[in-house]
Amino acid sequence: MIVKKLEIISSQKTEFIPVSDLINDVLAESGFEEGIVHIFLPHTTAGLLVNDRVEHVNLDLMRSLAEIAPDDWEYRHQAGNSPAHIKSILLGAATTIPFQSGKMLLGEWQQIYFCEFDGPKPKKIILSILGNAFD
Amino acid sequence: MIVKKLEIISSQKTEFIPVSDLINDVLAESGFEEGIVHIFLPHTTAGLLVNDRVEHVNLDLMRSLAEIAPDDWEYRHQAGNSPAHIKSILLGAATTIPFQSGKMLLGEWQQIYFCEFDGPKPKKIILSILGNAFD
Amino acid sequence: MIVKKLEIISSQKTEFIPVSDLINDVLAESGFEEGIVHIFLPHTTAGLLVNDRVEHVNLDLMRSLAEIAPDDWEYRHQAGNSPAHIKSILLGAATTIPFQSGKMLLGEWQQIYFCEFDGPKPKKIILSILGNAFD
Repeated sequence: MIVKKLEIISSQKTEFIPVSDLINDVLAESGFEEGIVHIFLPHTTAGLLVNDRVEHVNLDLMRSLAEIAPDDWEYRHQAGNSPAHIKSILLGAATTIPFQSGKMLLGEWQQIYFCEFDGPKPKKIILSILGNAFD
Repeated sequence: MIVKKLEIISSQKTEFIPVSDLINDVLAESGFEEGIVHIFLPHTTAGLLVNDRVEHVNLDLMRSLAEIAPDDWEYRHQAGNSPAHIKSILLGAATTIPFQSGKMLLGEWQQIYFCEFDGPKPKKIILSILGNAFD
Repeated sequence: MIVKKLEIISSQKTEFIPVSDLINDVLAESGFEEGIVHIFLPHTTAGLLVNDRVEHVNLDLMRSLAEIAPDDWEYRHQAGNSPAHIKSILLGAATTIPFQSGKMLLGEWQQIYFCEFDGPKPKKIILSILGNAFD
């Protein structure tokens, strides 16, 4: 297993940053022929999204998430960022993707997004790569 | 690690297809004594559900998901399947389950469902199996 | 890979039990230098939450979850615990966290909670630990 940390710098409060290429670059240099890559965010106001690479889907998703975590509710958590926490929870801070020959086995339409809900801030992604090394 | 691809053919627009038996069949022939099986859908309008094997729970879930992604909203994504994308995102395209002696360590009530939200279509499941081989 | 089962005993109907320390204790004794720990609940009315260690965030989350799975809806599932199933589904029964030197690489604010939605009941967590052993 190898571990690799990536830096992500968001530039807006809410932002969907595509990261599939970044992750594939790490896999291509990993020395593994096939395996799984575990993707983890050590953060509580960001989430991982694996879905359509078409941007409009993310706008529709934001509307749905705002339905259950609206900005104008009075929240118990006084830091003012409860909607960001709740969106982060619903998307999740971890996922795992299979790969072969240095590239994730994503479907034709899939993109992985780092979703920032309380930026702009520098954040991190921790990759853990397991599998079979090249002979 | 071994990788195995399964074909799933949905027959309705929305459908919950139980797949625990299919996955256990692969595990029984895998040559691994114990380990984890990673389950991945290379799709953006399907999701994985690990919950009650009683069908009524899925109907109740559909009602809750429709609450935040109703069919009659006007969505930005023009393909007309934004509710399917959003439901897929909330369930997730990947999960991992531990197994022993060729069988997943699911609880008494747990079933794994492949959830189709934009069928009928042929779709795929990619299994990655890691663990300890039999001596 | 090693497997370890933990017992969790909830004392209320709805309860968020922090379990990071319990899991770190297992990792510290695992003999692995670095790796990933897969966390699985063989249950359908409990979920795993990886988010803020501040308790108020959980109260805000409960309000959001109640928005799409209210206690006073008429549900198809006659056991009376559909809201618990739906909350369990949205949080998920499985997650994976990277670790190094016997400790999960959680962010400064992250805590892992076992979330009981239909207690009080004795429940289980199954840990599967993979990675590189100490030389």
